[in-house]
Amino acid sequence: MRQSNLFTKTRKEAPKDEVSKNAQLLVRGGFVNKEMAGVYSLLPLGLRVMDKISKIIREEMDAIGGQEVHMTVLQDSAPWEKTGRWDDKVVDDWFKTDLKGGGTLGMAFTHEEPLTKLLRNHIHSYKDLPAFPYQIQTKFRNELRAKSGMMRGREFLMKDLYSFMANEKETDEFHKKVTVAYMNIFKRVGIGDITYATISSGGSFSKYSTEFQTLSEAGEDTILISEDKKVAINKGDYSKTLLKDFNLEGVAFDEKKSIEVGDIYKLGTKYSDAIGLTYKDKDGKEQPVNMGSYGIGVGRLMGTIVETLSDDKGIVWPESVAPFRVHLVSLLVNTDKSKEADKLYKKLVDSGIEVLYDDRNIGAGEKLGDADLIGIPYRVLISEKTLTAGKVEFKKRTNKEPQMLDENELIEKLV
Amino acid sequence: MRQSNLFTKTRKEAPKDEVSKNAQLLVRGGFVNKEMAGVYSLLPLGLRVMDKISKIIREEMDAIGGQEVHMTVLQDSAPWEKTGRWDDKVVDDWFKTDLKGGGTLGMAFTHEEPLTKLLRNHIHSYKDLPAFPYQIQTKFRNELRAKSGMMRGREFLMKDLYSFMANEKETDEFHKKVTVAYMNIFKRVGIGDITYATISSGGSFSKYSTEFQTLSEAGEDTILISEDKKVAINKGDYSKTLLKDFNLEGVAFDEKKSIEVGDIYKLGTKYSDAIGLTYKDKDGKEQPVNMGSYGIGVGRLMGTIVETLSDDKGIVWPESVAPFRVHLVSLLVNTDKSKEADKLYKKLVDSGIEVLYDDRNIGAGEKLGDADLIGIPYRVLISEKTLTAGKVEFKKRTNKEPQMLDENELIEKLV
Repeated sequence: MRQSNLFTKTRKEAPKDEVSKNAQLLVRGGFVNKEMAGVYSLLPLGLRVMDKISKIIREEMDAIGGQEVHMTVLQDSAPWEKTGRWDDKVVDDWFKTDLKGGGTLGMAFTHEEPLTKLLRNHIHSYKDLPAFPYQIQTKFRNELRAKSGMMRGREFLMKDLYSFMANEKETDEFHKKVTVAYMNIFKRVGIGDITYATISSGGSFSKYSTEFQTLSEAGEDTILISEDKKVAINKGDYSKTLLKDFNLEGVAFDEKKSIEVGDIYKLGTKYSDAIGLTYKDKDGKEQPVNMGSYGIGVGRLMGTIVETLSDDKGIVWPESVAPFRVHLVSLLVNTDKSKEADKLYKKLVDSGIEVLYDDRNIGAGEKLGDADLIGIPYRVLISEKTLTAGKVEFKKRTNKEPQMLDENELIEKLV
Repeated sequence: MRQSNLFTKTRKEAPKDEVSKNAQLLVRGGFVNKEMAGVYSLLPLGLRVMDKISKIIREEMDAIGGQEVHMTVLQDSAPWEKTGRWDDKVVDDWFKTDLKGGGTLGMAFTHEEPLTKLLRNHIHSYKDLPAFPYQIQTKFRNELRAKSGMMRGREFLMKDLYSFMANEKETDEFHKKVTVAYMNIFKRVGIGDITYATISSGGSFSKYSTEFQTLSEAGEDTILISEDKKVAINKGDYSKTLLKDFNLEGVAFDEKKSIEVGDIYKLGTKYSDAIGLTYKDKDGKEQPVNMGSYGIGVGRLMGTIVETLSDDKGIVWPESVAPFRVHLVSLLVNTDKSKEADKLYKKLVDSGIEVLYDDRNIGAGEKLGDADLIGIPYRVLISEKTLTAGKVEFKKRTNKEPQMLDENELIEKLV
């Protein structure tokens, strides 16, 4: 894509009220627009990143049997009243809205209730199990404060997978499969090394659950890590009982700040009991369906990547989620050699490489600054100087020093 | 995909309160779930169709310079107050919701206001124009009644493109380009023959606008068609002046019911004036940006395809948007020949064909009924009988008579 056509512009300064690093960089780079605290629109570059993250998540969900659906924002109160979660005293961050003609609707912050109700039409026998619906869908939470940029939104993109199985044992097996899929996702989007499957309290349905925590000083959570034992514990849930249950007595832990990028909950039969989702087992006996839920904050994940991988010059996108693979920066605009840059652009695109082509008629300093801010993995610079040498200047966003390469060497490196 | 794994089931009966044909068939086939009137979740088959329609729309929007964004549902009142559209007396189908800590937010039914505001950060000079942001995003309308299934939703997927240009002449030129792109879309999704670019009143910003109307007895609109002149007029906007303006005096028109699947509006400078979106022209003079908006109801389009192309047995998907290309129906399940069907399934998938494989252990009648209901374009039946003949039975959903083909002939037909 020609950068002169891209309708967004970079900004020298972030909005004054934007305190989080991830949102400052994403706004300055033209990835997102802040509509209000915790509510961000995705601009073309930001949507490209989000689509790439979503594609990786879909692949991993499909690989473990997930079937994608798209549930609605608007929620009828009935199934939520059955589980007790309609009450604003129980769930204190509902957005609710009045339906013309009477009645109040909710804006979904999760989808256990409507999915459990929906599956009553589809699950009758043990033969209809298991079912693993998932979605990548926009959720809403009426947060009193939202100051962490993309990391705590009032409106945010979420991947939520649900498991409907015959019994707790099967749910436990699937929990392990999802843990592996989740770690694959975090690896593939570039934060595998700093993300930990973390033991935490299971809430009301089970003794323990799994959180996925990414190390970051900007995180709202604190975890305890043993690199030795390859284990992490949510600090708030640390207890003698937990250490005993996981055979971790006497282990030394390091305390670190972290961002929760995913979680897994065993739900047992709470929702299926309340809403009446049962199946007939092999003996014809009615049994409640056993459930689990598995979340990844997709918008938060994008924010976490920016928060943890950026440097003082800007964003550093991993190749897997970068909006483009190559940033071709031409210093030949408005010279008689400008066609040389066009030719190189065409050659790269024809080789199947995603290129953002900076063909804007502005100064070299501004171009290089923008390239660092936008954070595309490979920068290719073409100028009078490189032309004279019969080369282009190739630089990885993560390296300080550029390399001089001829066109064939360049294509070879990139394809 | 193996149908035995698909968590949704077909239904013999639609919900009693579902009066529209499109929703009856989509619910019965397991494409959508009705959450409440005008609010439908997409199940795996339905999401596949919606994704294919969306992909076609994206290709056509990208081809005319569209840049995809994703705006938010939650709306701050400020820009809407400037254009006068925040007032419930002016826009009577807002959903609104209260923000914890004070203030009221809207749920967007369109995005002129926030986009115009957003572009103030990015458009300063004539060099920054034009800009064509578009999105495929969920919109909300607080309809008093919603009885037309996917065709009039309270929550619905919409494609909305906006043009920001230097003057009205440029907007008019782009209007023509979008009209061509829209007709391409309607052709590609299978309703080109029955869809008309229709002259209608332009509302407050211009004398005329363009609607895209698809013939259907289920439509809420009425249009006047001249096949002779290849022209259509919205009946409500028919007038002597219009006939004169388009040189149509004395032309004979047929009256038909129709569904509005898309529309184009010239917005002039109403929004840019109110919100203050200007650019400096070549002489350094401040000018208001000239705008247009271009909508397609994506959910409504899916409903319209079902409404207009189905028959008494079920849905008839055009190949371009069908959830799968081939429905492989095995009558060999639980026989000693079941592996033959598995092999054929593998062979088709390995040839790059999208296949729904009915490997369910149910009767032949039910399988064939479901195949007609689900409406996949090509049905391939394998049974003891076809095996004996060394063939499979191949039937187009739109043909009455099947053909016997051997495997090579089959692959040749499909690849």
